[in-house]
Amino acid sequence: MRAALMYGPGDVRIEDVPDSTIKNPTDALVRITASCICGSDLHPYHSMDAAGGPARMGHEFIGIVEDIGSEVHTVKKGDLVVSPFAISDNVCEICRENLQTSCLHHEAGFWDGLPDEGGQSEAIRVPLADGTLVKLPVAADSALIPSLLTLSDVFGTGYHAAVAGGVTAGSTVTVIGDGAVGLLAVLSARRLGAEQIILMGRHEVRTDLGREFGATEVVSARGEEGIARVRELTRGLGTHVVLEAVGYMSAYEQAVGVVRRGGLISRVGVPQYEEAPIGFASLFRHNIRLAGGPAPVRAYIEELMPDILDGTIEPGKVFDARTDMAGVPAGYADMDQRRSLKVLITP
Amino acid sequence: MRAALMYGPGDVRIEDVPDSTIKNPTDALVRITASCICGSDLHPYHSMDAAGGPARMGHEFIGIVEDIGSEVHTVKKGDLVVSPFAISDNVCEICRENLQTSCLHHEAGFWDGLPDEGGQSEAIRVPLADGTLVKLPVAADSALIPSLLTLSDVFGTGYHAAVAGGVTAGSTVTVIGDGAVGLLAVLSARRLGAEQIILMGRHEVRTDLGREFGATEVVSARGEEGIARVRELTRGLGTHVVLEAVGYMSAYEQAVGVVRRGGLISRVGVPQYEEAPIGFASLFRHNIRLAGGPAPVRAYIEELMPDILDGTIEPGKVFDARTDMAGVPAGYADMDQRRSLKVLITP
Repeated sequence: MRAALMYGPGDVRIEDVPDSTIKNPTDALVRITASCICGSDLHPYHSMDAAGGPARMGHEFIGIVEDIGSEVHTVKKGDLVVSPFAISDNVCEICRENLQTSCLHHEAGFWDGLPDEGGQSEAIRVPLADGTLVKLPVAADSALIPSLLTLSDVFGTGYHAAVAGGVTAGSTVTVIGDGAVGLLAVLSARRLGAEQIILMGRHEVRTDLGREFGATEVVSARGEEGIARVRELTRGLGTHVVLEAVGYMSAYEQAVGVVRRGGLISRVGVPQYEEAPIGFASLFRHNIRLAGGPAPVRAYIEELMPDILDGTIEPGKVFDARTDMAGVPAGYADMDQRRSLKVLITP
Repeated sequence: MRAALMYGPGDVRIEDVPDSTIKNPTDALVRITASCICGSDLHPYHSMDAAGGPARMGHEFIGIVEDIGSEVHTVKKGDLVVSPFAISDNVCEICRENLQTSCLHHEAGFWDGLPDEGGQSEAIRVPLADGTLVKLPVAADSALIPSLLTLSDVFGTGYHAAVAGGVTAGSTVTVIGDGAVGLLAVLSARRLGAEQIILMGRHEVRTDLGREFGATEVVSARGEEGIARVRELTRGLGTHVVLEAVGYMSAYEQAVGVVRRGGLISRVGVPQYEEAPIGFASLFRHNIRLAGGPAPVRAYIEELMPDILDGTIEPGKVFDARTDMAGVPAGYADMDQRRSLKVLITP
């Protein structure tokens, strides 16, 4: 079968790899019908250590169940399913607290923990299929596929930012980052009833989509100037909640700068730093809280799907390009160069 | 009048200072009847820069209103009152969100922002008296005074740790630190219904009081050994909530080590660091949350007082020594040498 492999920075290739097969009785084999490239895939695209050998890529996909192990009960051959970007049993003590990204099962974890599998390929072995996969009530060629695919990661991640941030009716919110996660954090904050949603981003096509998703204001300035602008828009107070969808230290510093006294910074951009200011001068003095992490999207799929099915929301608008397997390397380049916001793959 | 002044590390003196007087129409003048030394007073006792000149000390007190400005309406001459460790108007937008330690009024702030006033003295000028002071329904010589005095800081701070930590019925909690705040964090967690309360501390007299306040287990080991012991007591999972009542980096690291996946670290010990690990390896991977800061004790006084008045709780047990003004320097030395847990002052 064909799959995307990353050999090093800027070097993605499509190659033939051994067919994925069932290995454990709790596995499902899924023929992938829709997949995509994630903003987080760009981190290794910039800085991957080539010495580790090529890596299979992709962790977001929809597909048709082609085979199941003997202990799989919730999905069957022929079902169209969506997979979260984390494998989980969905029944352990931590999963029951809706934190499936921290599932205690020894087979749980992220897709990059499975070196022989990847979502940017024609098929994939899904461990803990009963816990991980969710059946979709549409056909593989439905017009809703782009929006349903966002349940795999990007929408669930934006939604997690807002949920972990405690966004509720009347909240004031700043969203840092106009990537697909940031834009869907805007949509999520709107869905949860936020009154004011300030989107910080400088790419007008993207911030226009952000306005469509519910942003009430857009601030294109960054750093101290951007912070001052958000303060102006909030009577000097800053916003109750800041959704940080970037992961760089500059974004964290911006978050500290725009958050209101007693407010909360919710991070879903994977931190590209380990140490950061959290002492008296940054978080402590005014009881600023910090939350977030890898989104347990499994917890949100059933909640968010009805709004997609009935057309209330269309998170799939973040896909502004589509390609087959052969076009995946160009898709990486396009996203890296910001020519594309997010690339849908139909293997 | 007599007051405590700190001249430098280890150098506290009792001297005559100009009498405190009303300066603004919103001030009250309070004759102090009970005060105390705070664990946080020991930070300058260790490291004060003597070049700044002597500093007035003390921010926790009960006293009798001796005079009021023309715009003070909620307290009157002769009232016995308790003062939070932060001055606030209690009506601004931030105070109404119950974060009086971040009050927006220009006269609001901590007592050390008033160089001519201090709680370790015979009298004090209280700005924004209507917002700051709370009347007590007992006499100045009541046996309840030690417990009511804890509403000024130490109990409210322990309670804030638990509230900011989201402690609720069934929570599992680790409390780091067996100082007075840590012990009252135990009492607070118990009050909020925590099921398991593990107190990390090594001074047996103090941890015994912690058990009396509701600790279900005591762990005297620190660092990796202490973390391993807490993990043993929690089926390897750690606790939902960690209340960090110390402020040193070692305590923060211990908190990260014992918190459960998806759990929350609530800090009330003033951080003696600015940068700390919060990236993928520490907080982010498992959605560990961070909360806490200077306690808005003003928000808790009315809530906690009834339990003190009816004898349900006795937070005043943290006072294990009592002195007059002349004994204050020795009180500092006793707390510094851990001969006393907390010293009550009756000027």
